[in-house]
Amino acid sequence: MAHIGGIVHTHSTYATAWAQAQLDIPILGTTHADHLTVDVPCAPPMRDELILGDYEYQTGWQIIQEFEKRGLSPREVEMILVGNHAPFTWGDTVEKAVYHSAVLEEVARLAYLSCTLRPGVARLKETLINKHYERKHGANSYYGQ
Amino acid sequence: MAHIGGIVHTHSTYATAWAQAQLDIPILGTTHADHLTVDVPCAPPMRDELILGDYEYQTGWQIIQEFEKRGLSPREVEMILVGNHAPFTWGDTVEKAVYHSAVLEEVARLAYLSCTLRPGVARLKETLINKHYERKHGANSYYGQ
Amino acid sequence: MAHIGGIVHTHSTYATAWAQAQLDIPILGTTHADHLTVDVPCAPPMRDELILGDYEYQTGWQIIQEFEKRGLSPREVEMILVGNHAPFTWGDTVEKAVYHSAVLEEVARLAYLSCTLRPGVARLKETLINKHYERKHGANSYYGQ
Amino acid sequence: MAHIGGIVHTHSTYATAWAQAQLDIPILGTTHADHLTVDVPCAPPMRDELILGDYEYQTGWQIIQEFEKRGLSPREVEMILVGNHAPFTWGDTVEKAVYHSAVLEEVARLAYLSCTLRPGVARLKETLINKHYERKHGANSYYGQ
Repeated sequence: MAHIGGIVHTHSTYATAWAQAQLDIPILGTTHADHLTVDVPCAPPMRDELILGDYEYQTGWQIIQEFEKRGLSPREVEMILVGNHAPFTWGDTVEKAVYHSAVLEEVARLAYLSCTLRPGVARLKETLINKHYERKHGANSYYGQ
Repeated sequence: MAHIGGIVHTHSTYATAWAQAQLDIPILGTTHADHLTVDVPCAPPMRDELILGDYEYQTGWQIIQEFEKRGLSPREVEMILVGNHAPFTWGDTVEKAVYHSAVLEEVARLAYLSCTLRPGVARLKETLINKHYERKHGANSYYGQ
Repeated sequence: MAHIGGIVHTHSTYATAWAQAQLDIPILGTTHADHLTVDVPCAPPMRDELILGDYEYQTGWQIIQEFEKRGLSPREVEMILVGNHAPFTWGDTVEKAVYHSAVLEEVARLAYLSCTLRPGVARLKETLINKHYERKHGANSYYGQ
Repeated sequence: MAHIGGIVHTHSTYATAWAQAQLDIPILGTTHADHLTVDVPCAPPMRDELILGDYEYQTGWQIIQEFEKRGLSPREVEMILVGNHAPFTWGDTVEKAVYHSAVLEEVARLAYLSCTLRPGVARLKETLINKHYERKHGANSYYGQ
């Protein structure tokens, strides 16, 4: 993936709490949709033969496979949780990868609060997801910095 | 609305969590009643034809309509949540609008804590709501800055 | 009560959240027992005729009556929550009253976390309450500042 | 235990909340497994005859007995919660004991968030526990500072 200029791995608190809960972070609001149009994926914990193999390399491989399995593009979704572990983010540059870690942590915090306040709350609807994403990204973007 | 001198839009954490949960913030204590006498309203997510139209303009229009539907005065209630989005506040001046954003965030945080501690806790009763609001606002006010 | 040298009223976050939930703060640990041997009392919301009378004066009167009703001594228990409102603390001096507000906020925060983690968790047992309180207070105290 | 160069006792917020809830902190993620391979043990509240005896001495004795009962080594598990009380940590030096208090607090905070988000979430599996622990500790360690 020649376009990735930086990868960041943190154990930031709320994103890691979701990874430990082995749950995707549901898209509940426009804060989330300003950055990606789908739930933040949480890959399942790694299979034993991969853990016992070249673990660090396999972690990267597992992320690639999770994206393929879900049909996601790493250019559009620039973050993932690895189950029982913690988040990984990336971007065109190291600066953008760090920025995505900060975005993810706040998205994770907001979703934690909404989900503990109202378990099972409905996701954001498609028209609102697309409106918020597309006004900031792509050919017809017109809003934001 | 000629009296409005400023409008503030934030994605502050607790207020946004309530908006994502698509819930009014119930009036549970005198901290809330010092500032308004009703639940902080949460407007439903916008209808699709409005999202696909002039979205930013329609957001303002939606807020006005929600106030009309509920019979609320924007002079007495100077804040709202837009469902799945985030809070908007206003005031006679920009300074007051910013102040209302800070008030809303703390009211939202208190209500989050009370509601997760005791789901379904009863609202503040009318006599206490009116006492706290009226000692700070209107012709008979006598208390506070 | 000639021994009271200061009274402090805050709307500190966690203590106010308990007041809004209209719940006593249960004594769950030695942090609490280092300072008082009973649950932090939460007085019920004031009766309407008192709210409509001399409200601020009646708030003080209500606190005194709640202590009498529960058989508590304001020298041993130097804090209370007023339901739907917020905490009040006192002490021999203003400094001690402020200190009790800080103690109460941390006790309230710890109890919030324990009760949301394990609803209905058992209170601290009497022997441990008395041990912690008495090693810091009274004729046989020997521990801490 | 000649190898212990320091013991630290705090009432840090999240670790104390778990102690008050009288629960072991379950091992839910690799943040935890980077430091120990088992749940953080929570010793039951002390028996009355020990509380009424030499309390501070008996607290230490209780910790030793809890480790023996569970078959844990104080060299591998360098932290414990005492039920209804708070955490104790230790290490080869005072600096390491303080470090373990900070680790415990963050592990407690992560587990609180994961458990309130998804009550009853599954523990980390053995292969992942061992991989993370062993790459940082022991003869075959190769990762980290």
